Amino acid sequence: MPSYKGYFIDLDGTMYKGKTKIPEAAAFIKRLREAKCELMFVTNNSTKSPDQVAANLSNNHDILTAKEEVYTTALATADYLNQVADKQHRTVYTVGESGLNDALIGAGFTFSENNPDYVVVGLDSDVTYHKLEVAVLNIRRGSKFIGTNADSNLPNERGMVPGAGSLVKMVEYATQVKPIMIGKPERIIMDMALKRSGLKRDEVIMVGDNYNTDVLAGMGAEIDTLLVYSGLSTKEQVQTKAKLPTYQVDTLDDWKFE
Amino acid sequence: MPSYKGYFIDLDGTMYKGKTKIPEAAAFIKRLREAKCELMFVTNNSTKSPDQVAANLSNNHDILTAKEEVYTTALATADYLNQVADKQHRTVYTVGESGLNDALIGAGFTFSENNPDYVVVGLDSDVTYHKLEVAVLNIRRGSKFIGTNADSNLPNERGMVPGAGSLVKMVEYATQVKPIMIGKPERIIMDMALKRSGLKRDEVIMVGDNYNTDVLAGMGAEIDTLLVYSGLSTKEQVQTKAKLPTYQVDTLDDWKFE
Repeated sequence: MPSYKGYFIDLDGTMYKGKTKIPEAAAFIKRLREAKCELMFVTNNSTKSPDQVAANLSNNHDILTAKEEVYTTALATADYLNQVADKQHRTVYTVGESGLNDALIGAGFTFSENNPDYVVVGLDSDVTYHKLEVAVLNIRRGSKFIGTNADSNLPNERGMVPGAGSLVKMVEYATQVKPIMIGKPERIIMDMALKRSGLKRDEVIMVGDNYNTDVLAGMGAEIDTLLVYSGLSTKEQVQTKAKLPTYQVDTLDDWKFE
Repeated sequence: MPSYKGYFIDLDGTMYKGKTKIPEAAAFIKRLREAKCELMFVTNNSTKSPDQVAANLSNNHDILTAKEEVYTTALATADYLNQVADKQHRTVYTVGESGLNDALIGAGFTFSENNPDYVVVGLDSDVTYHKLEVAVLNIRRGSKFIGTNADSNLPNERGMVPGAGSLVKMVEYATQVKPIMIGKPERIIMDMALKRSGLKRDEVIMVGDNYNTDVLAGMGAEIDTLLVYSGLSTKEQVQTKAKLPTYQVDTLDDWKFE
């Protein structure tokens, strides 16, 4: 039976579906905790703080979570920039919300509208033409262009509203510059999560419902993957893929481990 | 010597460069008027009214222009929708400015945020996430998606700021729907300008400085083209193209006609 020290776990579609509970999720986390596995919830959300994400899991989905167990693409962006930026080049302009801005402040970055070292574009429900213009003009002048994640949409009570990736595409088209992307399916978020966990690649498994983000991110980072059919991907879609997840289960109840 | 009844003429790069005069432009227009040619200024601008465009030419560039001689991509969008929409389906939601909205009102369209027949995306310097969300949700529910023009940037005093095309790309990525595009290099704006002029394809020539918009639009509509090297395209770029403009001149002074 497979044995992993650490579990990287997706949220929407895996731990819950929007506001709806996934019954097997809380039991799965309970079993992992009893087995003393390390957990990290790895999410492409860049707008919320780890506190807010942990509170949602704890209060609405019966999954008691510490904020230290939450790894957002905002944190991954901050960790990545912290790793690549030297001490003299730590200014940033963001199209994003407090989750992103707080993560960058936490990593010692300061904000500038004029020739920042980095322009980071993420989801921003207060985005304006002015913000996009400042991002575009700075990237055209040489600021490095970072995108938190490529998600085209996210679900809310009004429907499938525009995601971070759609704002990234806008800036990409207006600058003709390809961004460095951080979130799933890119490997950067996986590498940063690994570094934060202190675990080795072969000690960790990435668990998620979405082949095109969770599984591809794991594969790209050479981490084993567990696809659970509780969310977006279907068996029909996945069986046509050239490379399959390491494991596939119908529900998390079906995951047996040592 | 070539003889055309009608001239479709680009603006920026052809009649002026930003706020700077192109000396040969006013003389060219004067010669065309003396020869009784019909003129139409065909521009991918969707934010300004024909009045405003004509006033700029008249007041700042010594090119006395009537508003009826200005054909914006906003007018082309309105003419196109007027042609394709039946009487029961004339509601529209726009991401755009007064130039676009006034043109649509002029064509008898009314505005709706809920299930409009058409969503038109153009340049909007007051764009917000809310406007983009309304556009995306409606297109995902079935509204037809129209883009005024694909320009990635436009020049202003701050630099090359995001153009209409960057907002169109954003909505395209969030809907995974390809828009019908109106402006140059598409042929729709040419076809609508032809219809408005009452002239035949072989009676008209498209004059502009940009191979990738002006010349391609003319070619697509089977209209002869005159490329003038006063703006964006260079001879080096153009000579590598598989299909050349009908005519090329260094300045509009070099254009001789009957």
